[in-house]
Amino acid sequence: MQLPIQIDRGSGTSLQVQLAKQLRELILGGLIKSGAALPGSREMALNLKLSRNTVLLSYDQLTIEGLLEPRAAKGTFVSKRVRGRIESNILNSVRSVEGPKYDCAFDSPANVSIDFAFDRQSADTFPSQTWRRLILKKLAHAGSSAAHYSEPSGLLDLRQAIADHLGPARGINVHRDQVIVVGGIQEALNVICRSFPMATTPVVVEDPVSPGLRRVFESYSARVVPVSTDRQGLRTDLLPHHQSGGFIYLTPSHQFPTGGTLPVSRRAKLLQWAEQNNSLIIENDQDSDFCYDNPPLISLAGMTHSENVIHIGDFSKSIGGGVHIGYMIVPPHAIVSAMAAKAIFNNGISWLDQAVLADFIKSGAYAKHLRRVQRIYRSRRDILIEALKYHFNSVDITGQQSGTHILWQLPFGWPTGRELDKRVRSHGVRIYSLHREFDGSSDNMCARSDTAVIMGYSSLTESSIKRGIQKISDAIADLANVRRASH
Amino acid sequence: MQLPIQIDRGSGTSLQVQLAKQLRELILGGLIKSGAALPGSREMALNLKLSRNTVLLSYDQLTIEGLLEPRAAKGTFVSKRVRGRIESNILNSVRSVEGPKYDCAFDSPANVSIDFAFDRQSADTFPSQTWRRLILKKLAHAGSSAAHYSEPSGLLDLRQAIADHLGPARGINVHRDQVIVVGGIQEALNVICRSFPMATTPVVVEDPVSPGLRRVFESYSARVVPVSTDRQGLRTDLLPHHQSGGFIYLTPSHQFPTGGTLPVSRRAKLLQWAEQNNSLIIENDQDSDFCYDNPPLISLAGMTHSENVIHIGDFSKSIGGGVHIGYMIVPPHAIVSAMAAKAIFNNGISWLDQAVLADFIKSGAYAKHLRRVQRIYRSRRDILIEALKYHFNSVDITGQQSGTHILWQLPFGWPTGRELDKRVRSHGVRIYSLHREFDGSSDNMCARSDTAVIMGYSSLTESSIKRGIQKISDAIADLANVRRASH
Repeated sequence: MQLPIQIDRGSGTSLQVQLAKQLRELILGGLIKSGAALPGSREMALNLKLSRNTVLLSYDQLTIEGLLEPRAAKGTFVSKRVRGRIESNILNSVRSVEGPKYDCAFDSPANVSIDFAFDRQSADTFPSQTWRRLILKKLAHAGSSAAHYSEPSGLLDLRQAIADHLGPARGINVHRDQVIVVGGIQEALNVICRSFPMATTPVVVEDPVSPGLRRVFESYSARVVPVSTDRQGLRTDLLPHHQSGGFIYLTPSHQFPTGGTLPVSRRAKLLQWAEQNNSLIIENDQDSDFCYDNPPLISLAGMTHSENVIHIGDFSKSIGGGVHIGYMIVPPHAIVSAMAAKAIFNNGISWLDQAVLADFIKSGAYAKHLRRVQRIYRSRRDILIEALKYHFNSVDITGQQSGTHILWQLPFGWPTGRELDKRVRSHGVRIYSLHREFDGSSDNMCARSDTAVIMGYSSLTESSIKRGIQKISDAIADLANVRRASH
Repeated sequence: MQLPIQIDRGSGTSLQVQLAKQLRELILGGLIKSGAALPGSREMALNLKLSRNTVLLSYDQLTIEGLLEPRAAKGTFVSKRVRGRIESNILNSVRSVEGPKYDCAFDSPANVSIDFAFDRQSADTFPSQTWRRLILKKLAHAGSSAAHYSEPSGLLDLRQAIADHLGPARGINVHRDQVIVVGGIQEALNVICRSFPMATTPVVVEDPVSPGLRRVFESYSARVVPVSTDRQGLRTDLLPHHQSGGFIYLTPSHQFPTGGTLPVSRRAKLLQWAEQNNSLIIENDQDSDFCYDNPPLISLAGMTHSENVIHIGDFSKSIGGGVHIGYMIVPPHAIVSAMAAKAIFNNGISWLDQAVLADFIKSGAYAKHLRRVQRIYRSRRDILIEALKYHFNSVDITGQQSGTHILWQLPFGWPTGRELDKRVRSHGVRIYSLHREFDGSSDNMCARSDTAVIMGYSSLTESSIKRGIQKISDAIADLANVRRASH
């Protein structure tokens, strides 16, 4: 047996390690089958112009790893346990965790060319040029900082930049020591849940709510209390009468996913409720960066000095999901416990990303970037709404005033959201049934009846948006024809 | 009142935001006192050559933020609530969390010029050139990926690279689906603690153990069981007789902090114990990258196919602390729960750092880097030991065979580790008392008696190391003179 092995004498890697590595790959790749005999060490040495000792050492290594089995007087064989262990055991179990976005009942994502995803950003709006320039500058002037650990609560420079940004942008008067840099919204919620006793603690959430974030609270055994939303966000009239302590988690700028903006009157009522019940407000400031028709309302954290708001946000929508940086603004009384909780989770996040983001904000490039992206997204939103109106006349839409997605209430008599999603997929388009995506968390009327779909527009070009709506229109026409034919 | 405000008309930031920002800084910095009157808007406009409207808008903004209070017919005043809130409340509480490395009882770190820190890496060994080149390449060819979310369990490319690296390097036969990318060792332990029921679960740890990591287990209400170590690491003869289930967490390559390498006989005993007691081994592979005198022993994960080892490691020592990337190798039966737990914490870490690290490993640059750094650190270690021997004759050292620090057992009759630490600080040198740093976690004899100091050498140049030991020698001589004088 002549094996496809290449030994590179100039590579700097020892011959024995090279041989072991390539044999390992051949075995794990199934190119040498379980139970097969390997060439004898003399033959192998001769073929590859190696010393016999090198071959024996490689065989020994792979024997220790359980890939080879020497059998006395017979030679060396590939272990029979190898294949089963690698292929079935591992791969199958993993598939059930990864790739949850597309399930097998429908077409594969490869066939979807126009995806109205609501959790994806546009690659073409990422500030590549500026980011690249700032990275180079940072590496040139402070590159050695990458060698050092940083504070778990974040680079001081970035915390200052976030504090300075939030003042004018969100009306929050915040000192940098109140800013904790985290990996994103989820990590912020984990830090909060570790800073307070959570077991059986009531946590009011909006209904519907992001299932992933709800799961964070549940994983700490909190008692999650869903309260309905309408087109203006949380129904503050339905808040529980006597909640003692605990939390309320909400997305007042742009209710996720239904898109309402909480009016000032409800904000006042909410603050009063929290004060009376001694509850902490967790304000997820999602989507406040993109307000198309009116300036953003001042944040809840900015409206109150009562120190009962924890304000959280991240840069994944405004800059890019790959950056993985978020922040939490913690009232003074909670700083010590929040920092301690943060330090339990990790020692902080990527120095380079933090340093570059700090410069990006401080230099004014972030503000400029936001204005540019806002223009682009507004235009995509306008195209989407125009196209929907053009094809379907009067359309019932919520959430268009800000953020990067809308909620479309399907006309009476149409297929359900799930059904429509399935139909349009065969035309290469993806839209998202509110019921399907937020099922687990919802007692809400509109979600329960599955008559609404979520459509993100930020990651699609204007022409894709137009073509996508055209295809949805075609799918609906097909469906009508089928129905007509079957009657 | 003429305020020190500079308006930059070419900056791109609106005049109103510039003014508000600078006023905010003056107020928060205490340069304009609480209760003080601001100049009238006309006067301010005239001084700064701004329109009066711009000034009024800035004042309004700061009023919304609660920093200013307009009083009818009297003017605008700095709110009286500002100062107390910012200064006392926040700053004091924060100081108790941050900067724990240096306490106020001793000199300030500014006076320390030679720091034998054991948790810091050398800036001069960070692979700046290669890292920079790989960043540029990545940004040029795949920069738009920074716009997208990635898998919570890490970039596939990096997981593959880690799997390929660990095969030859640590003798672990691992499929990339078993690799989960994390922010570091601490995050890995959090993921493990969330993957299993931890309350009252026994977790054997080495004594001494890193207090920060011990705290992670305790924060999940695990029952931490310390077992003594000696010069060969964990005393496997002292393992509890009947532990049912649970975990054992250890650092077999280079016991942290005492420096022993667990011999093969103890490894075999440990694996047998874990098998019998149905316990999972958490192997922190710390410091295995730098073995100076002998090749590293095969890892515990590589020694066994019994699927009861979770292998964890990170790149902060081998590349740089600012990178914040670690990994866990999970046995197949635990993959699903570990991935789910990871996804609860965060959506993954910095795309750019992950992508660059993957290329760094795959291209062979990492292996080359390790060889280079190993040469440098070996030489620093040799200089340190030589200098100690030169000044103090026979020195009792452990942990020198690998890693980046040694443990020095002080000679009989010397001051305690804490005392010595304090003395040498006044000579501009820092060393670390084992007792002081690991007090909370230790019943261990050598730690209890405070006769050992930890000395890291990786972040110091050879000449600093020599000077540092010279200064320690001076401090000891001073002390002897003082004693002699007082007799």
